[in-house]
Amino acid sequence: MNPSPIRVTIWNEYVHEKQEPSVGALYPEGIHGALSKSLAAPDLVIRTATLEEPEHGLTQEVLNATDVLLWWGHAAHDKVDDAIVSRVQQRVWEGMGILIMHSGHMSKIFRVLNGTSSKLHWREAGDRERLWTIDPAHPIAAGIPEHFDLPYEEMYGEPFMIAGDAHMIFMSWFEGGEVFRSGFTLQRGFGRMFYFRPGHEAFPTFYNANVLNVLANGIRWLKPTVNMPFPKTNVPNSLEPISPKDFSFSKVGIVRT
Amino acid sequence: MNPSPIRVTIWNEYVHEKQEPSVGALYPEGIHGALSKSLAAPDLVIRTATLEEPEHGLTQEVLNATDVLLWWGHAAHDKVDDAIVSRVQQRVWEGMGILIMHSGHMSKIFRVLNGTSSKLHWREAGDRERLWTIDPAHPIAAGIPEHFDLPYEEMYGEPFMIAGDAHMIFMSWFEGGEVFRSGFTLQRGFGRMFYFRPGHEAFPTFYNANVLNVLANGIRWLKPTVNMPFPKTNVPNSLEPISPKDFSFSKVGIVRT
Amino acid sequence: MNPSPIRVTIWNEYVHEKQEPSVGALYPEGIHGALSKSLAAPDLVIRTATLEEPEHGLTQEVLNATDVLLWWGHAAHDKVDDAIVSRVQQRVWEGMGILIMHSGHMSKIFRVLNGTSSKLHWREAGDRERLWTIDPAHPIAAGIPEHFDLPYEEMYGEPFMIAGDAHMIFMSWFEGGEVFRSGFTLQRGFGRMFYFRPGHEAFPTFYNANVLNVLANGIRWLKPTVNMPFPKTNVPNSLEPISPKDFSFSKVGIVRT
Amino acid sequence: MNPSPIRVTIWNEYVHEKQEPSVGALYPEGIHGALSKSLAAPDLVIRTATLEEPEHGLTQEVLNATDVLLWWGHAAHDKVDDAIVSRVQQRVWEGMGILIMHSGHMSKIFRVLNGTSSKLHWREAGDRERLWTIDPAHPIAAGIPEHFDLPYEEMYGEPFMIAGDAHMIFMSWFEGGEVFRSGFTLQRGFGRMFYFRPGHEAFPTFYNANVLNVLANGIRWLKPTVNMPFPKTNVPNSLEPISPKDFSFSKVGIVRT
Repeated sequence: MNPSPIRVTIWNEYVHEKQEPSVGALYPEGIHGALSKSLAAPDLVIRTATLEEPEHGLTQEVLNATDVLLWWGHAAHDKVDDAIVSRVQQRVWEGMGILIMHSGHMSKIFRVLNGTSSKLHWREAGDRERLWTIDPAHPIAAGIPEHFDLPYEEMYGEPFMIAGDAHMIFMSWFEGGEVFRSGFTLQRGFGRMFYFRPGHEAFPTFYNANVLNVLANGIRWLKPTVNMPFPKTNVPNSLEPISPKDFSFSKVGIVRT
Repeated sequence: MNPSPIRVTIWNEYVHEKQEPSVGALYPEGIHGALSKSLAAPDLVIRTATLEEPEHGLTQEVLNATDVLLWWGHAAHDKVDDAIVSRVQQRVWEGMGILIMHSGHMSKIFRVLNGTSSKLHWREAGDRERLWTIDPAHPIAAGIPEHFDLPYEEMYGEPFMIAGDAHMIFMSWFEGGEVFRSGFTLQRGFGRMFYFRPGHEAFPTFYNANVLNVLANGIRWLKPTVNMPFPKTNVPNSLEPISPKDFSFSKVGIVRT
Repeated sequence: MNPSPIRVTIWNEYVHEKQEPSVGALYPEGIHGALSKSLAAPDLVIRTATLEEPEHGLTQEVLNATDVLLWWGHAAHDKVDDAIVSRVQQRVWEGMGILIMHSGHMSKIFRVLNGTSSKLHWREAGDRERLWTIDPAHPIAAGIPEHFDLPYEEMYGEPFMIAGDAHMIFMSWFEGGEVFRSGFTLQRGFGRMFYFRPGHEAFPTFYNANVLNVLANGIRWLKPTVNMPFPKTNVPNSLEPISPKDFSFSKVGIVRT
Repeated sequence: MNPSPIRVTIWNEYVHEKQEPSVGALYPEGIHGALSKSLAAPDLVIRTATLEEPEHGLTQEVLNATDVLLWWGHAAHDKVDDAIVSRVQQRVWEGMGILIMHSGHMSKIFRVLNGTSSKLHWREAGDRERLWTIDPAHPIAAGIPEHFDLPYEEMYGEPFMIAGDAHMIFMSWFEGGEVFRSGFTLQRGFGRMFYFRPGHEAFPTFYNANVLNVLANGIRWLKPTVNMPFPKTNVPNSLEPISPKDFSFSKVGIVRT
């Protein structure tokens, strides 16, 4: 008996591809279109959603039927509705996995999951990037070599303002002299997050075999283990007896020593 | 030469004290008033702020002049303006310390700093609470005994939905049968957070010597080490030379193996 | 096609069962014998090993053929040969999972994996213990209720001297007034560790359904993802050209500002 | 009133300086001698100790009178007596700070504190190293620029087998194409550890102003907050009453569901 397929939704703001001919030439069906083709596999059911759709394509129904959400955004972070961001975050708390790529580090959803500004240094100069696999035992690193190069990428440099519980899997070396924490996981509530740095729209990064393998591994690792809200619950009946209390506070005084 | 005093702002929603006579009797000048008296010390300059003040008393000027912000809220979390929450968060990212007490776990600011729902189980039955000091070496635990009791407190029980990098200093045992992670620190950006569980408005917790000592230690530990925004910065000039690039992507192909 | 079975070795010092009749009556085939029966499953190949066997039953061959090692020890930690401890640690670094139970917290292997003294407070009084599941989303918590009781157990109390990267899954409440971090994971090298507190030899803890389910989940989660030593490697040929150097240090001076 | 000075012991294996003339020329009084001069300050009382001294200069008396221990070793890790390593580790557990430099990553004390193999990749080619300050808010980073270069250093490259709770302050970029986690802290028991990568014996690294400032900051941050063993303690008298128990286990059965 096979396990149920993983229901994947690839979200893309889908702006650069339509506005910049060179990006459109690279990803004629959008980054979401390219990824949904490249990541296709028997154990996945993939759909896509974009900013311009009603509710950005992320209705409650879609999210309820999503196990793992991929997120690519850059030019239009501020156009993503706060209510949709909260809805996505709530689903992560309930167990949905989320894989945030590249410039998604400044998306509202990345920032609310980290609790940080998520700022960094950057340079668009087509730096050569070398990714080092620093936790080869992590399932997301399965089959990924010790290091691999991307011939042209946007540079992201440290300091990178992220949460302290980021578990690091990949780190990057840049030709121009910088380093970066390029691939890490977090847990928020019952859901897992994976951030992966590469993926600038102007470069063919999403056709790179290693990049696609990392994303493919990420999706499998992000599959929810549970799917339930955590209720804030009043438990009026204690498991143990509670002793009678003297609620007269007449002797209250400031007693700090 | 003495170091500059630490500029402390104690924020209180100040609702229960005015609405419930028993709470008002316990804290006639409000929880903020009681704390500002009890925590007074030569190295601190303390002011207070409350929900009902313009901008909740947390203008940009006040926050710029605050090293450590204490936060007590419960009944009116949703009345705190989102813009003020973002302003406080920005100041934490810049280095301001924040000490969040008790029911502040459901405040907007606690939740955005953790990135979590911050939910938990609770019971208002005057449980006896015993706090255990699990990291006696942490400066916040200085002078705090291995364990101490609070005779009546609201119970908070696990699971507590917090971030994974919470560094634990105190854990609680409750008479009614629950356990809780009661005191922990986080870093977000350049600022530190300390959460401390006790402090239900209906009980004289803020007159307890150990509780006051924990808060006093917390303020000193939360003092900023830096005070600066982290700019997201374009660094167009690389430190190392960047090699010429071939930007013709004509040979692009899907090559995932 | 089924995946390969997980090769499990259950190690037990096997001292109390032979020396104390009440323990022998409870576990007539030893704790290792009881566990190997109770944990039997089609996806597991289980063997046992004990202190008294040559090399404590943990020859290099046995360890090389072990995916997950369970460890129970108490009375004879100091009789475990240092060379065998190093051999086990080396295998964890290579990817082998290790599940350490109860008083194994003072075993040499637990201490060298944590880097800590692993000390705690304890009491043998048959306290009732209540375990709370604080990360219900972790695979080790699958099917485990929010809380469950063990009617009699040895008490272990905080502070518990463990490493800071312990990821907490279970916490305990004790009838006598203590709390404890009872179930957590660590990674060391490529291998994972899971520590689970319950399991005093004088009580029938290893017949408890929830305890057995936790151990069963633990074994599956500890299954190695890789199996390889990490070589300390000299890489004489750099990936990037290294510029010529001026190795004349004649201008060296102390210049700390 | 001034606080007590910090009692610093600088430990150096002191082998290369005597065996290799170029190293001896660089550090004629040994690395320990150079550091004790450069780090001299009114709030520090510095002594040195070396491998060749009785008990490697680290008698119980010396360690008891040491607040912060600096450690440099490379060629003779295996000549350090296990009993002395345990003594140092015990003192860290009691609160003593330890600052481990460069090739000390393979020292016994570094490995037992991390619980890892501590292996890495390396190259002795005089790579230019650039250190990036990734947590500018940490006291150890006070006054350290966003990045600084060391013109010639031994290369250390990822993966670096360290514990998961390493809090990262510095990361390195190497001219030859590698990245490394170069400065991080841990806590073990009541004591703090700081590891700092630079410091190859063949280069004048310990005359670099930024390196010296990092070490100077490290010493202040490592100052103990407490100084006490954590006793493993039997607490026979419970704080809460323990109910009578039925110790007849006659109904024991295997009940895993």
